[in-house]
Amino acid sequence: MNAPDSRFREILKALAPFALALGIWFVPIPEGLTREAWHLFAIFAAAIFAVIINAFPLLTSALLAGSFAVLSATVDPAKVFGGFANQSVLLVVVAFLVAQAVVKCGLGQRIALCVVSIFGKSTLGLAYSIFITDALIAPGFPSNTARGGVLFPIILSLAQGSGSVPGDETKRRLGGYLMFCGMASLSVSSALWLTATSANPIGVSLAAEKGLQVSFGSWLLVASVPALVAIGLLPLVLYRFFPPGVTATPDAPQAARKALREMGPLSRDEWITAVVFSFMIFAWIFAGTFNFSLAGVAIAGLGLLLAFGVLTLDDIYLQGSTLATFLWLAVLFALSGQLNEMGFMGYVGERLASTLAGLAWPAAYVVLLLLYVAMHYMFVSQSAQVLALLGVFLDVGVQTGVPVHLMGFALLFASSYFSTLTPQGGSQNVIFVASDYLTQGELYRLGLLTTVFCTLVFLLIGTPWVLWVG
Amino acid sequence: MNAPDSRFREILKALAPFALALGIWFVPIPEGLTREAWHLFAIFAAAIFAVIINAFPLLTSALLAGSFAVLSATVDPAKVFGGFANQSVLLVVVAFLVAQAVVKCGLGQRIALCVVSIFGKSTLGLAYSIFITDALIAPGFPSNTARGGVLFPIILSLAQGSGSVPGDETKRRLGGYLMFCGMASLSVSSALWLTATSANPIGVSLAAEKGLQVSFGSWLLVASVPALVAIGLLPLVLYRFFPPGVTATPDAPQAARKALREMGPLSRDEWITAVVFSFMIFAWIFAGTFNFSLAGVAIAGLGLLLAFGVLTLDDIYLQGSTLATFLWLAVLFALSGQLNEMGFMGYVGERLASTLAGLAWPAAYVVLLLLYVAMHYMFVSQSAQVLALLGVFLDVGVQTGVPVHLMGFALLFASSYFSTLTPQGGSQNVIFVASDYLTQGELYRLGLLTTVFCTLVFLLIGTPWVLWVG
Repeated sequence: MNAPDSRFREILKALAPFALALGIWFVPIPEGLTREAWHLFAIFAAAIFAVIINAFPLLTSALLAGSFAVLSATVDPAKVFGGFANQSVLLVVVAFLVAQAVVKCGLGQRIALCVVSIFGKSTLGLAYSIFITDALIAPGFPSNTARGGVLFPIILSLAQGSGSVPGDETKRRLGGYLMFCGMASLSVSSALWLTATSANPIGVSLAAEKGLQVSFGSWLLVASVPALVAIGLLPLVLYRFFPPGVTATPDAPQAARKALREMGPLSRDEWITAVVFSFMIFAWIFAGTFNFSLAGVAIAGLGLLLAFGVLTLDDIYLQGSTLATFLWLAVLFALSGQLNEMGFMGYVGERLASTLAGLAWPAAYVVLLLLYVAMHYMFVSQSAQVLALLGVFLDVGVQTGVPVHLMGFALLFASSYFSTLTPQGGSQNVIFVASDYLTQGELYRLGLLTTVFCTLVFLLIGTPWVLWVG
Repeated sequence: MNAPDSRFREILKALAPFALALGIWFVPIPEGLTREAWHLFAIFAAAIFAVIINAFPLLTSALLAGSFAVLSATVDPAKVFGGFANQSVLLVVVAFLVAQAVVKCGLGQRIALCVVSIFGKSTLGLAYSIFITDALIAPGFPSNTARGGVLFPIILSLAQGSGSVPGDETKRRLGGYLMFCGMASLSVSSALWLTATSANPIGVSLAAEKGLQVSFGSWLLVASVPALVAIGLLPLVLYRFFPPGVTATPDAPQAARKALREMGPLSRDEWITAVVFSFMIFAWIFAGTFNFSLAGVAIAGLGLLLAFGVLTLDDIYLQGSTLATFLWLAVLFALSGQLNEMGFMGYVGERLASTLAGLAWPAAYVVLLLLYVAMHYMFVSQSAQVLALLGVFLDVGVQTGVPVHLMGFALLFASSYFSTLTPQGGSQNVIFVASDYLTQGELYRLGLLTTVFCTLVFLLIGTPWVLWVG
């Protein structure tokens, strides 16, 4: 493979999505669909395809698709731009900004150290301390990537404190075990709370279009049992299949206590952050009662953190990547919503449903869930898969007779726990992968193990629980 | 003045807007206004006041005001968040991003050098080259701050090339003259094209609410005569009142030609940028004919520049300040729009109109325009004044009998040319001010001179022209 060859392949790759779009565009429009719905499908499919084959980043794909949809009069501009006003999209954006405060003021690290000082005596205890810390701070961190940014330095210092370094093959595995625990923990803690990852409010919004209303409280209730079982067992499962080599870390609790003493009492900024986040979590929990908008609460939190100087304009000025997220998310979100409004999702649902027609609904439920999880091998972003497939899969499930809340919650939770399936299956993975404590082979193997385990827990324990509380 | 004193004053300053909001909130609601309209006025006035007294930055003020308006049920959340989907707001945001390409690929510098190579023989010629370059590139730069970023390095190298440095009192004035020409030029070029500054589409959107429809072409037609007269005379006026000391720069054209030769032919990225911007300007001009959305065109341009790799994700990741602009602009824009929808602007307009009742409409027109321009002493952002006052002033003008297109265009153009009134009157000024070629006294004096001159040109030449082309 020489340079001209690879350049030629790059050009082919960049042209492939356009070829796909043209191919679908000019195929005879299937009966039962409008011209606009079919053309939008051509645009949307090409955009997702471009991301999957890595021809263009999400942002580029979304901007090209959105502007073409508008300029070709396939979709009303106001409908596309409406994605920027969507409360779920705004919640994601503001949450990214608000999470900076927890990292910056040191509150996140303090909470983590507290947990380690209690649970950190053994490697297994350290693993549990990671899972518990993560689960506790998750509702205030609607970005699991930001949460990874809090957990990672702690895990790194725990690994290094125990003498484990990436270069030393015999000692590497302790660090590798803890690093993977961090990734696995994020995938389950994200399933536990509605506000624990950006994909959740997007999924909730899509599910609402199918008639499934999910609140902060109802999500927590339904997720609690399977997620807590997974949190309780995952450290042991990983321990069994990837023994860390070192099992006792008697010094960790003391080191954490020492670090806590060195931190001293809560600083002004930590107090303010704690109060503002308590207000936000309280307001999110009782949003239904007070008729509060979730995004409005997040914006109030951001405004207060800026007013008190915990965050500064300079902190916001570093968040250009959040702007990129805002742009692609709003556009893809709007396009996906329009595909639904124009009847395309329903049409595909009917088709898939007719192929599953012979199946009883419990069988259809299992088949759809397994198919949805397995397809994550193709996606580099959780949000992208949620946007592309959650609506369709939910539709098909409902049409084959699966109760809407059962199918909906199963897909919503899966959208979180399938993130470890590949190293690039979620952006929060990347920081742990880059630590070099784990080989690519280990990452894929442990990722498959974790995803299969979570799928089983959510199927076998989550299913009866949803049906019982539902 | 010691430290505790200044800290106490900071706290007082931060509390003052809240006191103002509470004061207005609990005053008996004037007859003819709804409770919501009055409460929103309390929130909005406090937010603008906080910015004017420098208690909080625009972003903080906007977020606090927006979230309070939502959480207090004063305004429907969907109405506030609708600001993010507003096409003018999106145009500003995407334009900031697109402008990076012109700077990055070197096309902006090349155009500037071409103009200098023709006009650069004397100091006055250099000044004209700045004004003409600026006016030519302005329609493709919907951010005058970004345009300042292209002009500034050229002006700086012209000044230094002529031996003028800030530290040398005798030689300083050549650089000072050229620097101020840069600021003055931006203020007039922004009035020439609808897409030349972020405040313009905002103003157009507000004017549309009062029934004045402005297109890219109609703006250019109406602005052309007064703006070109101002461009033709301003370098001379500034030359007369701030003689630069050095008047001949015979080497500048040759230096520019040499720099152009060194640049070589257009690079791949320059070609792509030129083609994409030509497409955008073409599409903006004929947006009405093709029924194109202005923001859709800008998004397509950004998508293409990213797809061809002229801009990369890393360039976007540096644009956190654009995210901050997006957030405050969308929220303030929505609140200002709601004040209007709830009838508050109309109410104030009636009041102001009744105090101007005795005046014939031509007198009211002049009084309103002068008042609008003078009030810019209080504003640190052009967009903020447009959001706060343009709608009200236009309303009052219309109610006292001024033709809507006359009053509307006068206010729209003033919103650009009043930017030099104070050094902080527009964010694009800051880069020139920071060069240290001008003292604060000179800046205020030349700023007043430029603003008065432009006001006279737009009043005496612009008025009959607007009425004639009508």
